[in-house]
Amino acid sequence: MLDKLKEDVFRANLELVRYGLVIMTWGNVSGIDRESGLMVIKPSGVSYNEMTAGDMVVTDLEGRVVEGTLKPSTDAPTHRALYKAFPGIGGVVHTHSTHATAWAQACRPIPCLGTTHADYFYGPVPVTRRLTPEETDNEYEYNTGLVISEALAGTDPMTMPAVLVASHGPFTWGTTPAAAVHNAVILEEVARMAALSAGIAPPQEIDRHLLDRHYLRKHGSNAYYGQKKNK
Amino acid sequence: MLDKLKEDVFRANLELVRYGLVIMTWGNVSGIDRESGLMVIKPSGVSYNEMTAGDMVVTDLEGRVVEGTLKPSTDAPTHRALYKAFPGIGGVVHTHSTHATAWAQACRPIPCLGTTHADYFYGPVPVTRRLTPEETDNEYEYNTGLVISEALAGTDPMTMPAVLVASHGPFTWGTTPAAAVHNAVILEEVARMAALSAGIAPPQEIDRHLLDRHYLRKHGSNAYYGQKKNK
Amino acid sequence: MLDKLKEDVFRANLELVRYGLVIMTWGNVSGIDRESGLMVIKPSGVSYNEMTAGDMVVTDLEGRVVEGTLKPSTDAPTHRALYKAFPGIGGVVHTHSTHATAWAQACRPIPCLGTTHADYFYGPVPVTRRLTPEETDNEYEYNTGLVISEALAGTDPMTMPAVLVASHGPFTWGTTPAAAVHNAVILEEVARMAALSAGIAPPQEIDRHLLDRHYLRKHGSNAYYGQKKNK
Amino acid sequence: MLDKLKEDVFRANLELVRYGLVIMTWGNVSGIDRESGLMVIKPSGVSYNEMTAGDMVVTDLEGRVVEGTLKPSTDAPTHRALYKAFPGIGGVVHTHSTHATAWAQACRPIPCLGTTHADYFYGPVPVTRRLTPEETDNEYEYNTGLVISEALAGTDPMTMPAVLVASHGPFTWGTTPAAAVHNAVILEEVARMAALSAGIAPPQEIDRHLLDRHYLRKHGSNAYYGQKKNK
Repeated sequence: MLDKLKEDVFRANLELVRYGLVIMTWGNVSGIDRESGLMVIKPSGVSYNEMTAGDMVVTDLEGRVVEGTLKPSTDAPTHRALYKAFPGIGGVVHTHSTHATAWAQACRPIPCLGTTHADYFYGPVPVTRRLTPEETDNEYEYNTGLVISEALAGTDPMTMPAVLVASHGPFTWGTTPAAAVHNAVILEEVARMAALSAGIAPPQEIDRHLLDRHYLRKHGSNAYYGQKKNK
Repeated sequence: MLDKLKEDVFRANLELVRYGLVIMTWGNVSGIDRESGLMVIKPSGVSYNEMTAGDMVVTDLEGRVVEGTLKPSTDAPTHRALYKAFPGIGGVVHTHSTHATAWAQACRPIPCLGTTHADYFYGPVPVTRRLTPEETDNEYEYNTGLVISEALAGTDPMTMPAVLVASHGPFTWGTTPAAAVHNAVILEEVARMAALSAGIAPPQEIDRHLLDRHYLRKHGSNAYYGQKKNK
Repeated sequence: MLDKLKEDVFRANLELVRYGLVIMTWGNVSGIDRESGLMVIKPSGVSYNEMTAGDMVVTDLEGRVVEGTLKPSTDAPTHRALYKAFPGIGGVVHTHSTHATAWAQACRPIPCLGTTHADYFYGPVPVTRRLTPEETDNEYEYNTGLVISEALAGTDPMTMPAVLVASHGPFTWGTTPAAAVHNAVILEEVARMAALSAGIAPPQEIDRHLLDRHYLRKHGSNAYYGQKKNK
Repeated sequence: MLDKLKEDVFRANLELVRYGLVIMTWGNVSGIDRESGLMVIKPSGVSYNEMTAGDMVVTDLEGRVVEGTLKPSTDAPTHRALYKAFPGIGGVVHTHSTHATAWAQACRPIPCLGTTHADYFYGPVPVTRRLTPEETDNEYEYNTGLVISEALAGTDPMTMPAVLVASHGPFTWGTTPAAAVHNAVILEEVARMAALSAGIAPPQEIDRHLLDRHYLRKHGSNAYYGQKKNK
């Protein structure tokens, strides 16, 4: 079942490796079939070298394994929580990519310092609050998803397809697994540039009018970047 | 038409990828045929993997597409403005290369700290002022070209073939598309070294006499670097 | 003798190169056969390109060469001291990997700033005290092992499989040579991220409850990460 | 003539590229035949891709071209000055490698912070004074060699086979061209680590007794590192 989505999720996981965003088995991608409400996700702790599309695990949004012989990624409950909170998204990515994780560990949002950032993320990339001992001790991974949606409260998740979990690392999302990976790649580069800029001079936030211009020339009804309107 | 220039522009775009200056579709190279006044530029948002020389778009300096089925790069008006402002140049490059962009985001010129820099750029690499809301809202990309030429006012663009656009990233130029790419590669390395030096000790500007010696041993009528005079 | 262990140690040494943890001949891996009490280690100063499994040197824990025509690694006495101090370990790695060495040279423990660290090292990675002139002048390499075990005093070496030797570099260990290499790879990435985070904001130590959760979900009797319990 | 030395110098130049120490044509290696007093050096500004061993230029120590159709490297007079000042050396390397150049641009010696450094350089790597306008205007490249030997005054150049030229970059040397390249590789890594360490905590100079131990276990009459005595 869901063979096409399994293939997409499988390929998206390999893209994380190709782009240098994960080492070892740190990282996972999932996709959702909104019609059936079923999620496809990478199995837990399986080497990227040995993994096949058939190893992808299918679960429902309550976490029940519907198909697959392997355990789903330990972070699966976070993915589920995000699919519930953000109905418009079709793919979720979690990595420990170096520079985005450095910001997450610093418990600081990534300020929007330039148009590279503004082209993809409509403002600073938020950081979650730290989880309480209670949230950590019970349903930790699901609660991680809840503090993410709390950090995004009042923000359209389609205009801010990334978040930093405090003391942990980044999650990104998009309309598809591939789009979520794309956003993870951009986030890493944006995080790297922001730290470098902040090392040169105190952070110079982008002007509001330039942020609007760049974000809106790529996204929304008046977009004019690329060969056809972005979805 | 302009098949040779299309091929040059196409190859120069691929060089940006090879040198690690662009990820995704961030970056564009153009070239100009001064005789006909026509510019050849990369199409907007097309993957570097799929692009062919035939996809290059030909426009005049007023922005009218003269040949090509794809939309030109969104930044084409900036390129046009530079060809108008700097009659001696034959190629223009725009990237979001990591370290040059970090300086652009910091809204700081790159100080000339050593001979690596002095061999190519005759003084600090300037940074533009920020665009006003009006300049951003109307003809944004063309106005970007105007603030670049404003930042270069009083400077020979052939001795300073690079600029940082505030909150954005670098533009470089040269006598040909390949020369502009060459300058983009150097700029990125010079930007990286300058930030590293500034992290070790307060910036130590190069002595004027050493700047002159290095720049002039590679450029100008008394150049003695390489096997024959640099153009 | 010990052909399987020689092969494991040989391959583990090559892994150090593949992961970019060593340049030149800086780095060495050993393994121990607990039954016979014999250690297998890389020979000293031999190029990784020319080395074969047969070049591995077998010594006892008093440093006597039992088999092999080459001199063992200069650091062999440190390895011996660690095998004596930590009876549960089966492999030891020493590198001068860039970021871990940077922390060692700064004589600072690596603070635990996030879950990437917490997944592998149960608290800050300790740094040894500096050796005295006497410890340096006599039995220097063996004394290096002694200050390492001193730095780990009161800590289970299986929950903290890494240390920084002050003014020197990292040592890691594990149940096997391959596990020790794995920990060396993680340590390098954790060291890199910690320095980046500390460059963004004053170090934000991970909450104790989150450290516990992450370390214990991968290790110990209630581990639930991966497809089967971690050893 | 000197075919073996030409081959060695040619290969050593390519090694600079392989180790990532040079981009474009930034960098040059020479070797000397002490018997004839002739120097072999890379030609100026020739692409590494196109260069052959036969392109190497032979000059005497007064700078007269003895063999070769191409102009020698612009930096040839610096190499000559070093061969005159340091009779024990057989090869010289100049690069603009990123991290060593960053220190040179900061006009700061590289402090000896750890054993990686102590294994190769017996103390801080010195930085030259800046050249005066007069030294820069006349015989600039030769004068660069003179300020290098001035910076090494009172130091055995065989125990300190590297220097940083202020506002410029590193020179290294050794008994052969290959040994000089080896030292250039080490210097770059040592420079990188030192800057990273200094970013973590104020520089912690290595203890004198540890510096002695490490330098002397690899060099000198009591060396015990590697399979046989280092020359």
